[in-house]
Amino acid sequence: MSQATTTLTPADLISRFTDMLGPVGVLTGESDTAAYCTDWRDLYHGRALAVLRPASTRELAGIVRLCAAHGVPMVPQGGNTSMVGGATPDDSGHEVVVCLSRMNRVRNIDPHDLTMEVEAGVTLKAAQDAAREAGFMLPLSISSEGSAQIGGVLATNAGGNNTLRYGNARELVLGLEAVMPDGAVFHGLRRLRKDNTGYALRQLLIGSEGTLGFITTAILQLHPRPRAIEAVLCAVDDAGAALRLLGLLRGRDPALVQAFEYMSGTGMDLVTSLIPGATLPLGERAPAYVLVELATPRPDADLREYAEEILGEALEDGIITDAVIAESEGQRAALWKLREEHAEAQRQAGASVKNDVSVPVTHVPALIDRATAACAALVPGIRAAPFGHMGDGNIHFNLVQPEGMAPEAFLARSHDIMDTVAAIVKELDGSFSAEHGVGQLKPYMMPQWRGGAELAAMRHIKAALDPHNIMNPGKVLPPATQGA
Amino acid sequence: MSQATTTLTPADLISRFTDMLGPVGVLTGESDTAAYCTDWRDLYHGRALAVLRPASTRELAGIVRLCAAHGVPMVPQGGNTSMVGGATPDDSGHEVVVCLSRMNRVRNIDPHDLTMEVEAGVTLKAAQDAAREAGFMLPLSISSEGSAQIGGVLATNAGGNNTLRYGNARELVLGLEAVMPDGAVFHGLRRLRKDNTGYALRQLLIGSEGTLGFITTAILQLHPRPRAIEAVLCAVDDAGAALRLLGLLRGRDPALVQAFEYMSGTGMDLVTSLIPGATLPLGERAPAYVLVELATPRPDADLREYAEEILGEALEDGIITDAVIAESEGQRAALWKLREEHAEAQRQAGASVKNDVSVPVTHVPALIDRATAACAALVPGIRAAPFGHMGDGNIHFNLVQPEGMAPEAFLARSHDIMDTVAAIVKELDGSFSAEHGVGQLKPYMMPQWRGGAELAAMRHIKAALDPHNIMNPGKVLPPATQGA
Repeated sequence: MSQATTTLTPADLISRFTDMLGPVGVLTGESDTAAYCTDWRDLYHGRALAVLRPASTRELAGIVRLCAAHGVPMVPQGGNTSMVGGATPDDSGHEVVVCLSRMNRVRNIDPHDLTMEVEAGVTLKAAQDAAREAGFMLPLSISSEGSAQIGGVLATNAGGNNTLRYGNARELVLGLEAVMPDGAVFHGLRRLRKDNTGYALRQLLIGSEGTLGFITTAILQLHPRPRAIEAVLCAVDDAGAALRLLGLLRGRDPALVQAFEYMSGTGMDLVTSLIPGATLPLGERAPAYVLVELATPRPDADLREYAEEILGEALEDGIITDAVIAESEGQRAALWKLREEHAEAQRQAGASVKNDVSVPVTHVPALIDRATAACAALVPGIRAAPFGHMGDGNIHFNLVQPEGMAPEAFLARSHDIMDTVAAIVKELDGSFSAEHGVGQLKPYMMPQWRGGAELAAMRHIKAALDPHNIMNPGKVLPPATQGA
Repeated sequence: MSQATTTLTPADLISRFTDMLGPVGVLTGESDTAAYCTDWRDLYHGRALAVLRPASTRELAGIVRLCAAHGVPMVPQGGNTSMVGGATPDDSGHEVVVCLSRMNRVRNIDPHDLTMEVEAGVTLKAAQDAAREAGFMLPLSISSEGSAQIGGVLATNAGGNNTLRYGNARELVLGLEAVMPDGAVFHGLRRLRKDNTGYALRQLLIGSEGTLGFITTAILQLHPRPRAIEAVLCAVDDAGAALRLLGLLRGRDPALVQAFEYMSGTGMDLVTSLIPGATLPLGERAPAYVLVELATPRPDADLREYAEEILGEALEDGIITDAVIAESEGQRAALWKLREEHAEAQRQAGASVKNDVSVPVTHVPALIDRATAACAALVPGIRAAPFGHMGDGNIHFNLVQPEGMAPEAFLARSHDIMDTVAAIVKELDGSFSAEHGVGQLKPYMMPQWRGGAELAAMRHIKAALDPHNIMNPGKVLPPATQGA
């Protein structure tokens, strides 16, 4: 891919940007741009020619046309919450960061279509709140939802806790407006449940991590709010038993299962020993746990009775060994705290290595057993603490250093550990990035995992839609010298 | 797009194909190929150099590489049930029809993943049956399911009666294997619920109507079988009331609503007067009707009680004026017969004009009211008989000739009528093809409806993946001289 070269000086470009966006729309001083040039994990430190903050699709299209004409690379940014450096510029100082946070209106909620129309700069949390105030639910929830913005959430096809019930971000999008790499506007802001008129550009843009265009506005599907929720913590002997529990629950009625989160005994031990106020509400420590959340919008569905019945059956059949149902909203929060403090407890326990992987649901027990054993063989005393969205086959396979080991010595093994886990994931037909995407952290993995015809097609599409490689260059696709 | 020219004679090509597929895999005689060269609606009559019937992905990849090397255009064909000529060759005699019906194995059903792996040539009916025998449901149902094959069902993103509950074909596909236009195999047969590793090629292939490659195998999502179903025929005063009923049902619990089919009074009159055995099980004729189907996999959900309660509420609030619940499987079939015989009754009533359109669900009443009035103004006495998947905003807006009018005289107005309906659909932000796709019947509509950046991006993608325009040429995209 060739990169057009600019014929304007940096000062000329900035002056043109300022003409288009006004001074409020253009940041150039280092103190103003610094926060946009580093990712929150502090993995990447770039520089930017400017940070541009258009206030409308029209303004955005104008600057994209200018950038296209002069070969200026653009890095889209929303809440800057990427786990993989997907929104951070390189250190050349030639790139502009384009932040859509000023486009932050919830435009419309339609109670018949069950849709909402939101601009890219609305935070996920604000979108959830707007839906809730209108009596509905936007069923997409991720840890970073207070900062993450809709544009980035869709560009990365975010997942989260409720995917097994409501789908990934992809499944919740009915329509999109986007600015393409040449500045043309794709007017796909449709609210149609059925529309077979050509290629699925919407789907292509979702998950492309800003490398094919800017998502500016979206039509999202809403659901009615749950009127009954039951959260249950179950003790199980192993991941195989957890899989049987999932089968039981989904076989009975998958529409009632809103979350199914696996936690290892090791991980739970860290949480209960290190996090103040985190206590296990079960009689005994177990080898593993599952946090199940059942929910229904029916007010009259006797969900509690249903939960008790199915748990009784699971106990009787030896699928679970113990269970506790939250009796109040406070108890429900306490159960979720056990799950949500896993990352923090691991941080306190020392150095750790994280793997956001997925496998077919059937293979989760094999993944957990084999990767735990392989890592223990590699680093004796290593604490494998896998947890996460088992209902989606998505496990955060995290490994905490052995007690007493020097963190540096452990981290020196991190590539060995990651390779060991990855090899098992690959054997089980899994993915090296379930939720977090590729960004600039993982393009090197693409040739081995998605090589051949798949990567070739991705490269052809990228070159066709962004021939000058100015949309978020260096993200997702590895350099042409690497792989097919 | 340039078309490579072959350097082999037709006889040489056929001999090479026969070497690769054996005699059983190559049909050339006119009597053998005729059925593959005409669509079932009898709109298009083409000719083929040969009909190729590979028995495996390997065989298919071999012939695609040969065709690519020699610029031989290929027309993928499954059950040959396209409504828009999408699987019919042109009349040049240069194209080969490639039929995947010999690749017809259901390879695997996984009860934990709730997935099935099926080859392209399996009929939708056979796939449904295999799922049912394993205790599950493949929730995709269309009129042509006895003939339509999985490859075509996915290539056209089929919809049907249960889309509002389970999604279009697109939403049911977890993984795909495909042969790309250069003969390379895309190995995307993954069973992952979360996998953010690059562009959504699977989504791009689904709905591309065979213009970007051959879908050879798919991983489909299954659901547990419903253990309780209640079918209800409701009488309503107009489509606005039907919309309120939909809101009531989905607001209470969308997971229970499996079908929501609108029928006009005019259409119902045709069915009850022309179809033997079709009788209205309600006291009085109504201006419009809705066939609702509620379903749940829970055996203990008291669905009947739920249905009665919500219908009682709807009666009390004046949303519906009458209702009948099927008391047996036979009565349920009788209610569906009233819906399913609409097309046949209209055929018997004389000439008719069909429009497979969709609008946002909110706009269905406006569509029905305005298009009915506009057509009546255009052709006095015309019988507007709209019906279909109101829950998806997808209405088959069919118009039957006035009684006593000569069919030819009516059909002479068909373009006026279609344009009139289309103009209203466009004003309501709808689609000119909700379910049936574009094929070779409707590419001319693309510039006006999907023009600008959208059609430009589609053309770029087509040129990038199929530079010699040998994959189903002439389908979906209009000639480059037409539109953007």
